[in-house]
Amino acid sequence: MLNEIRKWLIGPPLPTQSASRERLDKIRALAALSPDALASVAYANQEIFLGLVVAGAAGLAYSWTIALAIAGLLVIVALSYSQVISAYPSGGGSYSVARENLGANFGLVAAAGLTMSYVLNVAVSLTAGVAAIASAFPFLWSHRVALSLLLLLVMTVANLRGLRESGTVMAIPIYLFVAVYLIMIGVGAYVALTQGPGSIRATTLVATEEVALFLILHTFAAGCTALTGVEAISNGVTIFKPPEVRNANQTMAAMTIIMGVLFLGTIGLTQYLAVVADAQETILSALARRTFGPGAVYLFIQSSTLLVLVVAANTSYVGFPRLASLVAQDGYMPRQLTFLGDRLVFSNGIILLAGLAGFLIVIFNGDTHMLIPLFAVGAFLAFTMSQAGMVARWLRVHGPGWRIKTIMNGLGMLATTVALLIIGVSRFVEGAWIVIFLIPLLVLTFRMVHHHYEDTRAQLTLRGLPPSLAPLPEPRVVLPISGVHRGVIEALRYARAISKHVTAVFIEIEPGSGDLICKRWKEWGLEHDIQLEIISSPYRSVVGPFLNFLDKTDREHNDGQLASVLLPEFVPARWWHSLLHNQTAMVIKLALTYRRQKMGKIRAIIDMPMHLRK
Amino acid sequence: MLNEIRKWLIGPPLPTQSASRERLDKIRALAALSPDALASVAYANQEIFLGLVVAGAAGLAYSWTIALAIAGLLVIVALSYSQVISAYPSGGGSYSVARENLGANFGLVAAAGLTMSYVLNVAVSLTAGVAAIASAFPFLWSHRVALSLLLLLVMTVANLRGLRESGTVMAIPIYLFVAVYLIMIGVGAYVALTQGPGSIRATTLVATEEVALFLILHTFAAGCTALTGVEAISNGVTIFKPPEVRNANQTMAAMTIIMGVLFLGTIGLTQYLAVVADAQETILSALARRTFGPGAVYLFIQSSTLLVLVVAANTSYVGFPRLASLVAQDGYMPRQLTFLGDRLVFSNGIILLAGLAGFLIVIFNGDTHMLIPLFAVGAFLAFTMSQAGMVARWLRVHGPGWRIKTIMNGLGMLATTVALLIIGVSRFVEGAWIVIFLIPLLVLTFRMVHHHYEDTRAQLTLRGLPPSLAPLPEPRVVLPISGVHRGVIEALRYARAISKHVTAVFIEIEPGSGDLICKRWKEWGLEHDIQLEIISSPYRSVVGPFLNFLDKTDREHNDGQLASVLLPEFVPARWWHSLLHNQTAMVIKLALTYRRQKMGKIRAIIDMPMHLRK
Repeated sequence: MLNEIRKWLIGPPLPTQSASRERLDKIRALAALSPDALASVAYANQEIFLGLVVAGAAGLAYSWTIALAIAGLLVIVALSYSQVISAYPSGGGSYSVARENLGANFGLVAAAGLTMSYVLNVAVSLTAGVAAIASAFPFLWSHRVALSLLLLLVMTVANLRGLRESGTVMAIPIYLFVAVYLIMIGVGAYVALTQGPGSIRATTLVATEEVALFLILHTFAAGCTALTGVEAISNGVTIFKPPEVRNANQTMAAMTIIMGVLFLGTIGLTQYLAVVADAQETILSALARRTFGPGAVYLFIQSSTLLVLVVAANTSYVGFPRLASLVAQDGYMPRQLTFLGDRLVFSNGIILLAGLAGFLIVIFNGDTHMLIPLFAVGAFLAFTMSQAGMVARWLRVHGPGWRIKTIMNGLGMLATTVALLIIGVSRFVEGAWIVIFLIPLLVLTFRMVHHHYEDTRAQLTLRGLPPSLAPLPEPRVVLPISGVHRGVIEALRYARAISKHVTAVFIEIEPGSGDLICKRWKEWGLEHDIQLEIISSPYRSVVGPFLNFLDKTDREHNDGQLASVLLPEFVPARWWHSLLHNQTAMVIKLALTYRRQKMGKIRAIIDMPMHLRK
Repeated sequence: MLNEIRKWLIGPPLPTQSASRERLDKIRALAALSPDALASVAYANQEIFLGLVVAGAAGLAYSWTIALAIAGLLVIVALSYSQVISAYPSGGGSYSVARENLGANFGLVAAAGLTMSYVLNVAVSLTAGVAAIASAFPFLWSHRVALSLLLLLVMTVANLRGLRESGTVMAIPIYLFVAVYLIMIGVGAYVALTQGPGSIRATTLVATEEVALFLILHTFAAGCTALTGVEAISNGVTIFKPPEVRNANQTMAAMTIIMGVLFLGTIGLTQYLAVVADAQETILSALARRTFGPGAVYLFIQSSTLLVLVVAANTSYVGFPRLASLVAQDGYMPRQLTFLGDRLVFSNGIILLAGLAGFLIVIFNGDTHMLIPLFAVGAFLAFTMSQAGMVARWLRVHGPGWRIKTIMNGLGMLATTVALLIIGVSRFVEGAWIVIFLIPLLVLTFRMVHHHYEDTRAQLTLRGLPPSLAPLPEPRVVLPISGVHRGVIEALRYARAISKHVTAVFIEIEPGSGDLICKRWKEWGLEHDIQLEIISSPYRSVVGPFLNFLDKTDREHNDGQLASVLLPEFVPARWWHSLLHNQTAMVIKLALTYRRQKMGKIRAIIDMPMHLRK
């Protein structure tokens, strides 16, 4: 029945051979790879507004300056990544680039940063999307956690079914979003030209003229979340139609330009028109209302914002499971993450991502603003690792124009490092500390996992073993019995078939019950073939005396093997029947499986499950 | 470590032979068997007060009449039970008496009633004890649930350690309680004689002159809880010193007289002195304060009330596990209830009782008054079954004076039946319906359990089997492998030792991995001894294709046996390492254990747990 539900939910399994990889043209590749980057405008804008609004009109006047700084950073990062595209046409994620050029440890730091970044992208995008729609429908505001989790669930199921990022369906929300925002900027510019600059009503704001440097850096750090997702195109060069590198670079350029226009356009308009938002509204929602009034057009803009943020969250569902499977293949994450599920997607990675993002949404109460300080650290750490890796690469490989390339990636590295420091320091107390604490922990965990796999491999290797199967002596079989019944007889027949040395053991709990068993043993004529041992257990425990008997018999025989234990067990027909039986066989099995044997010998445990018919 | 905690909490295990049974003189036997009955005064009084106080002074005037009726019922029941004592000197519980004389089904009804009654005795006594002490210390009133659960926990641990009901320590609270209450009644009588009757202040009461018959019956039903526990002496005849029957009968008479004096004395005084209690005080507490004033003597009385109620609750800890083990021995309750624990007590019964009582305390919010309507139904049902059983016995056995005996037990049966009907009807909506619904359900469950044990026995019986062990053919061994490693080699050696027909099976998930295994198989020279089957799994499932292979190979060989499955498994050194492995062996084991085999054949599952050292 569980299987049926699964099939209904995620569809019938697909054969491995049907996995294929479609190449995309630039239009569709842009839609596939840019949602995360483009949708960042939605929350980065909001963060800049929230960062500055505490300082009133004087504070908000810095919006444009900060936006320009971030746009400049965007251009530097984009140029750096276009070099990654050229150098790694087979797809150069930060993990691969750092690992190849800086060594495994730096690769793991990048992987840890990316993991954080992917998880937070889901949490931030979904909560920001819900905030966009709750800005239009205020009664939804108090249900933000539930709505975010609902979206998360729907996306998880869709991705477990094998939703493809290349689908044309996915392209619609992106281009819709770009189109409506460009129109809004255009109309807004017209409004601005015809009506002139707005002024901020002092009543709603704390008026303070002293805007400290800290405030600006702090807001810049928050705004840096606009850059998250920029690396996606360099990871996905392989999905472009040939010539891949050229197409990818052109798409990167297009994306950078669109991002720049959306970001600077909306911030510029917000500042010029002096738009301000309430606590239960986003600044982009306020801008849209200011531009179009609270009508159908406004609602359409909010809906398209929600949609693009959902698609942006979805890029993590594509990126994280792939990263995890890559890291797991190298033995740094649990191997289960490399398995293709029924629908040819890395199901375990999808479930892990959803679990972590859901956890964040719940503990941060679905509040984007609380999640943001955690977000940029991971992303910028991965940027820095990637750029540093590229610098190391150019210094090692040289090749044509390596000096200029080194300078460009070096500039990228420098810029992202500075941004990373600003983010880490200025947002430390607000939550960045969590990520700064978690990343080394994650790297340590990766290393421990790797260590365990190495240990296991060393213990399982055949090196040093004789090249053929040395014969083992005939096993001695020991059979704990609770009485003389059909299951025991079947077990005895099996024991006799595999060995001539069979001993049945009865643990006598009730004084006198052993004699009864002896009597029945003789009645059935079993005493000729099989030795029966009666062991009295004055403390009424079954498992302890049985294990002691095993140790004793192994010691006495001293034939280089451990006795095999044959467990006659019956399996009830209904689940609740299990409550009516002792499960002694199960307890013995567990005790034998987890008890470490001396000298690394293996004790075979033979289970004979007899199924009751009713 | 778990074992250490257990040992510290409940003490080291005791050997079976140290179980012994001390005989008690009448003084100590009375203390051992009467607490439940005597302590009933505490809550029965309270219920009569609460039942009548709603009708004001006119209502409370009926206290004495109702108390007399209940005292009359007590005498009838006590006389009936003294006949049970004579007829069943080996201890005649309602279950045994009803089962022997009326058949298994009536026995089960009695057992269900007793089960309810035992569980409710714990819940009612503990909450009433907490109410007694909270009457003296009002700040405890809001913590009644927590205090009751704490007492429950302490009593459960004490009983798991093997607290004996025969202990002299247990006698102290009983005689203390009887003594202080007799003194209170004496002093109260002096106060009453010197001060004359009191009058009820009308302000605190709803004054209504219309007292319906229903109100009286309703209060009578509540007061009947005074009789719970009367049957204890007839259950425990065997603990008396010889002559058992005479001693038991004399003790029964003494208990009845003490109960009657305490009950009538306190109710008479309460009515005469017109004592009234607040919502956060018990009526006995109000009477004690009225008699002695709020000083040390009053506190002493309240403390002794709490103590006697705790001892009363303890009688369930002795009675229920014994009843459950008796019913379980007859196969109507899970067999685990017959096991003597480490400390020679029926630990499972104790834990079950504590769990059920704790559940009741929590859902009824520790309120005695809410629990009472559930209480009397079970007890009176058991009374009725017992008396009816006795009537049936006399009609069957005859013997000297059978006519008079039949009439006496018949009167008991009639009286308890009428009381049972009054209780069931008048308290139906307040909670009796729960018990009236649960008792048939419980009887049904008992029967289902019995049915299952009978089924199991029929399926395990050796009747119809050949009297010797028919030989089995040499087993075919199938070995699923995930690679060629040390664990697999050990498993192959074992497989070769028990059979010449060994097949290794590799489920190929990644296309091409099978060829690699084949190559290594040949490298190690395994292909001469052991056949290797590569099965490709296009849908990437391991278990399904493996089970299909088993079915296929069994079908092809058609040699009257199912292939044995040998599972090389490795057991990690640390618990978290298990998260890094697939647990495929475990999944296969579970699938094989629970999959029903055709034609009732048994498939042996051989587990080879290889312990990793690190």
